[in-house]
Amino acid sequence: MKTLHHLWLDPFCRKVRVALAEKNIPFELKSEPVWDRREAFLALNPAGEVPVLVEDEDGERRVVAGHEAVCEYLEEVCREPVLIGETPAERAETRRLAAWFDRKFHAEVFQNLVGEKLTKRFLGLGQPDSAAIRAGLSNIRTHLDYIAYLMEARRWLAGDRLTFADLAAAAQLSVVDYIGDVPWDYNPEARDWYARIKSRPSFRALLADRIPGVPPSSHYADLDF
Amino acid sequence: MKTLHHLWLDPFCRKVRVALAEKNIPFELKSEPVWDRREAFLALNPAGEVPVLVEDEDGERRVVAGHEAVCEYLEEVCREPVLIGETPAERAETRRLAAWFDRKFHAEVFQNLVGEKLTKRFLGLGQPDSAAIRAGLSNIRTHLDYIAYLMEARRWLAGDRLTFADLAAAAQLSVVDYIGDVPWDYNPEARDWYARIKSRPSFRALLADRIPGVPPSSHYADLDF
Repeated sequence: MKTLHHLWLDPFCRKVRVALAEKNIPFELKSEPVWDRREAFLALNPAGEVPVLVEDEDGERRVVAGHEAVCEYLEEVCREPVLIGETPAERAETRRLAAWFDRKFHAEVFQNLVGEKLTKRFLGLGQPDSAAIRAGLSNIRTHLDYIAYLMEARRWLAGDRLTFADLAAAAQLSVVDYIGDVPWDYNPEARDWYARIKSRPSFRALLADRIPGVPPSSHYADLDF
Repeated sequence: MKTLHHLWLDPFCRKVRVALAEKNIPFELKSEPVWDRREAFLALNPAGEVPVLVEDEDGERRVVAGHEAVCEYLEEVCREPVLIGETPAERAETRRLAAWFDRKFHAEVFQNLVGEKLTKRFLGLGQPDSAAIRAGLSNIRTHLDYIAYLMEARRWLAGDRLTFADLAAAAQLSVVDYIGDVPWDYNPEARDWYARIKSRPSFRALLADRIPGVPPSSHYADLDF
């Protein structure tokens, strides 16, 4: 059995959840309050971060920690459907774009919006920084434009098929959308791409997430938004 | 011919330089002033970041952008010597530890020391933050301890052979060492590990780096430090 130690609104955990679902790999979710730095969890991942995938099979335990490591691992142990690409060039393009959203979008948009509005409040780190929020709301348009630019010549972000690049982008955006900060009207092409991901069975579990005390935006789970 | 667009003291570029040298792949270096945001470079990598590997072969050009993508690409197109590991479990461990240094060490140590002392000055971003420097000098001990802990049971960070995990860690540390901020006396086991990497032919080019106006620490290139 596989267990994914995760946090509900962590975009890296969400990427892995969708990847597992796309590959039809059954798994259980276990929420991990990383801020408690529990000994038992640090033994699984000394970095103290989610996601961590734990496999218990035939009396053996295997632990895979970190979102890149988990994604690459899933691709190696479960080839179908391919989520990275077939050729080295295709795979390089998937990894370039996955890193774009995992790192660049995360720093320029996610942290400025979800980090300021939600994480800070939750962890008691003070008031949101309004300059950061303004920056995030401005930066997200650049990223939506980039998605639209890629969509001019491609069916999915990295090429003709769905890859970890789409999963990384959609996972980050899904949390920003949870708090209602994605200006979908600004860019119909980016919205069309997100609508296609959102309607996939692999995304359903994410759309059912409800964090106590933090209701999602009205259109969060709406497939026609 | 392969060209690596890079910056001399960028740890991610250094990781790739050593990986190329370990795999005996000839390449040319091209320094890229990313802060100028040159059109020609943004055409290669819209993220505007180094490293970028460009291959021009048989009239075809292939561009691989981003340090994870370049490392994985090199492993796919040039199998020997293996730098990730053979089995999915070994590869997951390499990637976990590479991400540890690429992300955690980078945020907790590199940015607090090299970022404050060197990058800020170079980019005219004001005075170094002494609280950040203190945090960096404290955090680096935890990371040296972690290296020493891994060395208790392993020959290299991720197991019995040299991997991208060692390259990632050594690349980050080499720049902190350039400015003389690694307390090697604090931890002999970590120093022994670094001495083994430092003495490899693949590391020589890095030790010859000299940034105009920023001389390295006295022991930077010394194999017996």
